[in-house]
Amino acid sequence: MTETLTLYTAKICPYAHRVELALEEAKAKYTSYQIDLQNKPTWYAPKVNPASKVPAIAYGGPTAAPEDPSPQSVKIAESLVLLEFVADVYPHAHLLPTDPVARAKTRFFIEVVSSKFSPAWNAFFRGQAGGSVDAFLNALEEVQALLPSEGYAVGEYSTADIAITPFIARAFVALNNDIGGYPEGESKVVLSKLAEPRFARFTKYWSDLRSRPNFTATFDEAYVTDAYKKRFASLRAQK
Amino acid sequence: MTETLTLYTAKICPYAHRVELALEEAKAKYTSYQIDLQNKPTWYAPKVNPASKVPAIAYGGPTAAPEDPSPQSVKIAESLVLLEFVADVYPHAHLLPTDPVARAKTRFFIEVVSSKFSPAWNAFFRGQAGGSVDAFLNALEEVQALLPSEGYAVGEYSTADIAITPFIARAFVALNNDIGGYPEGESKVVLSKLAEPRFARFTKYWSDLRSRPNFTATFDEAYVTDAYKKRFASLRAQK
Repeated sequence: MTETLTLYTAKICPYAHRVELALEEAKAKYTSYQIDLQNKPTWYAPKVNPASKVPAIAYGGPTAAPEDPSPQSVKIAESLVLLEFVADVYPHAHLLPTDPVARAKTRFFIEVVSSKFSPAWNAFFRGQAGGSVDAFLNALEEVQALLPSEGYAVGEYSTADIAITPFIARAFVALNNDIGGYPEGESKVVLSKLAEPRFARFTKYWSDLRSRPNFTATFDEAYVTDAYKKRFASLRAQK
Repeated sequence: MTETLTLYTAKICPYAHRVELALEEAKAKYTSYQIDLQNKPTWYAPKVNPASKVPAIAYGGPTAAPEDPSPQSVKIAESLVLLEFVADVYPHAHLLPTDPVARAKTRFFIEVVSSKFSPAWNAFFRGQAGGSVDAFLNALEEVQALLPSEGYAVGEYSTADIAITPFIARAFVALNNDIGGYPEGESKVVLSKLAEPRFARFTKYWSDLRSRPNFTATFDEAYVTDAYKKRFASLRAQK
């Protein structure tokens, strides 16, 4: 029997979304609690996560209100630590393959997402030095090159797919609404390049990812779109 | 039965050292091949690791010369991916605890090493903006705060300890020999602060780590000291 589990999350946050996707995939029973990242409750850092970030999980101990988690529960933070944790707690969900080589490929894919894809997207999105349409597309192509000819990142659906999904989803929200610190209209350039044959494998992959039940159950596109408009409009205004 | 395994490594590199510590702890049978990082062999990137970094592992397939690994072997890179891989391939070595919460603590410790300790050390060592004695010591204190009152990072020896050991070892080589881009003599300030009661727990931890057989079998202090003198003398000269 699994223990009580409370997830502290926020709809806008791609890192928190990872853990929601994993818990949903595992059909876990858990309590979800939204943290307002612009106005965090004062109890959150002392009682849950000293780093004051989402996602975080309170696991075990007696049932308690999310605002006052039991001191007997263990508090765990960091999205990639939590993906492995969910895979460990719900082994029946097969969030990681069993073969050591396939597991290594899963973790290597996540490493490429963290060290290449996300930084390239962020630099482009925020209009930072080094960010450009080409740098982002090259990073995306590097991810695409890791994909097998069909199926998910390592064949069967895994934490590799879960790790990248929230970032692709939010990139499309930004691009489809021309939100970001990049020059106005560059979103159209990216979107038209993504529609080219060069990215056919990625396009199929993203279609596979976003049609999964764990994605439709956890991604509130209208909310994220509205939140992105409010939160990131200033990125271009500052230019 | 485990497969053939070749590790591509370099004595100076802390990331590669992690994998040596893990393989040694697991009493793995493997071939070790030194890559000269200042003069990499031309076959290394195309045949082993496109990123041209160490560590990398060639795993499986027929026995082959390290310079010409079998195309049937799988090539795996990235030190943290490889620590999990070694733990998966040699489960008898118990490089990770079995309890999901303890496993999460192991991975969280590694995350703090990667995101706090290593950047703070690097900024100080290289004399970069944001680097200072205090910033480094504060990061070290954050690591220390994760340690239980005795034993290793999560109690029993684990990949958490393996992940930090090479970085502490090389930090002491730099400090003991006043090598780095920080102002001359600041190494003495750091060393004297480390000897204070504030860092008693860390001092005991480092003593535990460096007396382990897997450390003494894999750390060539004389070689690393000499290599650090040659490679990093220019850091201060550039100031």
